[in-house]
Amino acid sequence: MTTAIRSEFDQGIALTRHPEEAGRYEAELGAGWQIGGGVNGGLLLAVAGHALSLEHGTHPDPVSISGYYLSASTPGPATVRTEVLRTGRGLSTGTASLSQDGVERLRVVASHGDLATADGEVRTSALPPQLPPPDQCIGVEHAPKELIAQAALLERFDLRLDPATIGWALGQPSGNGRIQGWFRLADGREPDPLLLLLVADALPPVTFDLGLPGWAPTVELTVHLRARPVPGWLRVTHVTRNLAGGYFEEDAEVWDESGRLVAQSRQLARAPRSA
Amino acid sequence: MTTAIRSEFDQGIALTRHPEEAGRYEAELGAGWQIGGGVNGGLLLAVAGHALSLEHGTHPDPVSISGYYLSASTPGPATVRTEVLRTGRGLSTGTASLSQDGVERLRVVASHGDLATADGEVRTSALPPQLPPPDQCIGVEHAPKELIAQAALLERFDLRLDPATIGWALGQPSGNGRIQGWFRLADGREPDPLLLLLVADALPPVTFDLGLPGWAPTVELTVHLRARPVPGWLRVTHVTRNLAGGYFEEDAEVWDESGRLVAQSRQLARAPRSA
Repeated sequence: MTTAIRSEFDQGIALTRHPEEAGRYEAELGAGWQIGGGVNGGLLLAVAGHALSLEHGTHPDPVSISGYYLSASTPGPATVRTEVLRTGRGLSTGTASLSQDGVERLRVVASHGDLATADGEVRTSALPPQLPPPDQCIGVEHAPKELIAQAALLERFDLRLDPATIGWALGQPSGNGRIQGWFRLADGREPDPLLLLLVADALPPVTFDLGLPGWAPTVELTVHLRARPVPGWLRVTHVTRNLAGGYFEEDAEVWDESGRLVAQSRQLARAPRSA
Repeated sequence: MTTAIRSEFDQGIALTRHPEEAGRYEAELGAGWQIGGGVNGGLLLAVAGHALSLEHGTHPDPVSISGYYLSASTPGPATVRTEVLRTGRGLSTGTASLSQDGVERLRVVASHGDLATADGEVRTSALPPQLPPPDQCIGVEHAPKELIAQAALLERFDLRLDPATIGWALGQPSGNGRIQGWFRLADGREPDPLLLLLVADALPPVTFDLGLPGWAPTVELTVHLRARPVPGWLRVTHVTRNLAGGYFEEDAEVWDESGRLVAQSRQLARAPRSA
């Protein structure tokens, strides 16, 4: 675990157990995970999911985790209070509340299990996205400066976006509502279930591709972890089909280098005002 | 509201506010909503969502609601305890815990709003399913007796399944992982946001179409309400793409008679054992 401890992500989700209060953990939200006005919602979900992993012990992996975002997080100390609701044979379920200065930022409910012991049967009709190789995709260094300036977390990523879905960066959004690319952490830390919670919310808002610049605050984000990822690149797709009533859904899929669908997520987010 | 009060669904989600304890409600889970071993998960989600509607007042509609199922419910009394986490301008967020005899059945987190005042802009690439007219679809009366015997709630429904997706009922599952059809309540009660929570979990498990008979217990179900439905028939699709590690996702879409996508949901459920 020495290498893991040195990685930025493991530092980002590090927790200290409270000496007296059972189920309580202290975290430090790093400035390096900021996006737009606050700390990335996927990182916050990973912090909460990590706390429940520690509570559940033999069920370390968030098989299904749902987060409701209550207020914008800021870099600095945060407290996570967990409650175990049920300890089952295959899954254990609990809640986690992440707060700063007594103000709740995120409420989570999740069912954790052990993906290493999961039933091996797979029946899938899902196909991984067709992407040009990473060296033919667009690195974040080419992203608009306004974007990078507001998204320190992009420096933590080696994110290579498919040129076919990055027209918005050149002022020519496709209108298809799709952004996809290759993802790995800049410091080489390999993927695991907790990292996938970050990856599910790592790409720019898919509304950029609808010609709606500006940030899209997450109302709710649920991630289902379907398998343990193998080391290497991840392929990530973000898609929306329906923007209505001031909100849109963003569906993400994460595929590992073995071609396995390792995570599926959906979030409901507030639509940016029309350009 | 007299007609609404007389409908089976409104009776099914009826709540009595506890005289002393703030945020507590009493419900009676009707035997008519049973499916397989317990009470239908969509009905339970509607009961919990209803309690939060009453708590939030001016934000009556569950815009996003996530339920984690902890133990099988049985017909009879149930208690719902709610906690308001945040009251915002557009959305109010809270939790609800549904229990029977002190055993928690369902834990919910949800953000409620007022869909009647929602921003009118719609940008969608989603298309409603192509279905034969209801009178050319297959009524539940033709379903296998074993199915009906285990699913009293089917008698509450006027459910007409697309012949193209009902091969499983004749021992010839398509393997596509898709079941779709027309839905309305048998007693004519018109759709509203709370009813859509039931509809999202109303069709037979999509795994029937994969040749996996038997019930599929829901781990987690999240429903996003995207618009208020108009009166009339609803079109419902249930689709799965990935069964792996002993679980599968079931994505549901609900379309109203105006052709509007009114609800999107996803659940993670435990896969039935292979036939």
